[in-house]
Amino acid sequence: MPTLLLDQQKCLQNMEKMALKAARHKLSFRPHCKTHQSAEIANWLRDFGVNAITVSSFPMARYFAEAGWKDILVAFPFQPEEMENLISISEICRLSILVDSPASLPFLSHIPNQLGFYIDIDTGYGRTGVSAENPELIEQIIVKASANPRMEFGGFYCHAGHSYKTGKQSERNKIHQKALIDLGGIKKQFDRYAPKVLYGDTPNCSTQEEFGTIDEITPGNFVFYDLIQCSLGACSIEEIAVAMECPVAGKYPAGDRILIHGGAVHFSKESLLNRGTSIFGQQVQRKEQGWTEAEVERYLTSISQEHGVIEHCGDLVREINIGEKLLFLPVHSCLTANLMREYHTLDGKLIATLNS
Amino acid sequence: MPTLLLDQQKCLQNMEKMALKAARHKLSFRPHCKTHQSAEIANWLRDFGVNAITVSSFPMARYFAEAGWKDILVAFPFQPEEMENLISISEICRLSILVDSPASLPFLSHIPNQLGFYIDIDTGYGRTGVSAENPELIEQIIVKASANPRMEFGGFYCHAGHSYKTGKQSERNKIHQKALIDLGGIKKQFDRYAPKVLYGDTPNCSTQEEFGTIDEITPGNFVFYDLIQCSLGACSIEEIAVAMECPVAGKYPAGDRILIHGGAVHFSKESLLNRGTSIFGQQVQRKEQGWTEAEVERYLTSISQEHGVIEHCGDLVREINIGEKLLFLPVHSCLTANLMREYHTLDGKLIATLNS
Repeated sequence: MPTLLLDQQKCLQNMEKMALKAARHKLSFRPHCKTHQSAEIANWLRDFGVNAITVSSFPMARYFAEAGWKDILVAFPFQPEEMENLISISEICRLSILVDSPASLPFLSHIPNQLGFYIDIDTGYGRTGVSAENPELIEQIIVKASANPRMEFGGFYCHAGHSYKTGKQSERNKIHQKALIDLGGIKKQFDRYAPKVLYGDTPNCSTQEEFGTIDEITPGNFVFYDLIQCSLGACSIEEIAVAMECPVAGKYPAGDRILIHGGAVHFSKESLLNRGTSIFGQQVQRKEQGWTEAEVERYLTSISQEHGVIEHCGDLVREINIGEKLLFLPVHSCLTANLMREYHTLDGKLIATLNS
Repeated sequence: MPTLLLDQQKCLQNMEKMALKAARHKLSFRPHCKTHQSAEIANWLRDFGVNAITVSSFPMARYFAEAGWKDILVAFPFQPEEMENLISISEICRLSILVDSPASLPFLSHIPNQLGFYIDIDTGYGRTGVSAENPELIEQIIVKASANPRMEFGGFYCHAGHSYKTGKQSERNKIHQKALIDLGGIKKQFDRYAPKVLYGDTPNCSTQEEFGTIDEITPGNFVFYDLIQCSLGACSIEEIAVAMECPVAGKYPAGDRILIHGGAVHFSKESLLNRGTSIFGQQVQRKEQGWTEAEVERYLTSISQEHGVIEHCGDLVREINIGEKLLFLPVHSCLTANLMREYHTLDGKLIATLNS
């Protein structure tokens, strides 16, 4: 079976680097835990001064609250089905949610505990949030929510996820600059409420050196990174901290390809364009401790449910034997980790997740 | 949270239709269970005379063997890491595997129980299998394997998965015709071994009416179908037996879009091109029992880990309220079911899977 290897040293280095960057820019640091979904890995963040986290669902909030985290932001617009979860989790930690519409406020009118909320701001991504150009709606949400003494306005949250959609760093710089201007403007306009500004996709947090009026960053993927982040210049290949170890199940010299056990139910179906071709993973070389970039570039070029195929595999098809293992960096580590449900560290320790 | 609804009636109709088709063509029927991965759903197949199944991994074989299935084919090339599984599963059922290289035979030299094997034949898909144009290699595998009295040659297996890669039925017809010719030729050439021919992707089993010398079909996805199958003409929209029910979490009239809770960790990242745009699901209308095609075509147009966005949603953004549910047909039901891990029938029954 495929296993997900975790290079703890690389992961700790990624954590330290981001924590130092936050400190250098005087930013609070509230890492998103949706990537690893693991209480044990979240605990490593404590050594870098982290005591508040971000999650993407209420089940994830419950898991980390029960693991001892006392300050958790659910970075997903609240909807009423989650009310029971919200109430019980807010008994055991300081819980905050995102709000991007007055329509969700009536559901919260009878909450028994204090609840933080941030207004989700859209600076151009177009997924969630109040448009940065709509201060009337922001005002309306703050005023309506303030009628409830249990609702505590924390400030603004922005995920500039459109930075993933462009291949050019110059475009990502523009996206980041616009976000800084938009968020700076809103922060000033609503300064009577003393709002904090939370910001945080991994590409921008990794590559940018100017954070304007931002108070807190919330990146998630940086703990592992992956091929997408690498393609965005957010990390080097060497910084990717997870790799899939997959047994070779077939050799086809005439077809210049190798079959591994490792498919869409292990890697996910996320792909990345590499010189015009979709790839699903990049082969790396096993070494005594961990892995290193392979001398020859080889990619997982197609996957189905359990099958993974490396085309154009060259000499490897003659050198490798059925049953031997090959290692691959994942295209999108969040989705791979979610499917694999556990990690194997290089010294053989098993690390559980919410899904174990 | 998103839930995966199962219309049991549609599922039973799909099963019956395929079973009747197999009977009409005098084909044995060994459905692939990787799509549903559920012992309960597999049991429904028994009412249609099914007593042998196909699976895609050894853990799946174990699960179904423990659920009482006595004839199981693991349709994945054997590799030695699975030896322990192979031995223990072959204690409790008639187990068969795929072989596509003499290289995997030495690992099987000391198996304690009888083991069926089929030679995987590649008629042009280019994933696994011995090329249909390489009878020497086929002969070599049969002869080498026959040295082991526990290895029982069952015949040939072919998954013409390249039928998924073309948008044209005329191309799929050619793929099917070539497979029939190739498999017919090999069957004749090796008739002294009395081989059976197993064949079976869902598109070809659903649309073709000529099966040549094929003995047994092994389709899997037909129990649920999905948008990919629909795009291939393998089913109608009405035959799709599963739908994702997702709560509305955001409304953005200015952006003409709706946010649902339902993302890549629920649907999978599989997409389908619809008029030049990638879609991740198609909205259907809830009705008292189940769902029906929506009057207006609306699609899940982008997904991230937990977020799903319906763009160009028209009037719906004003009609729907936060917390209400919307239903979506999945692009690829195998991957969605694998992620969701359980089914909710329309009368509220929970159906477990291998991953529950």
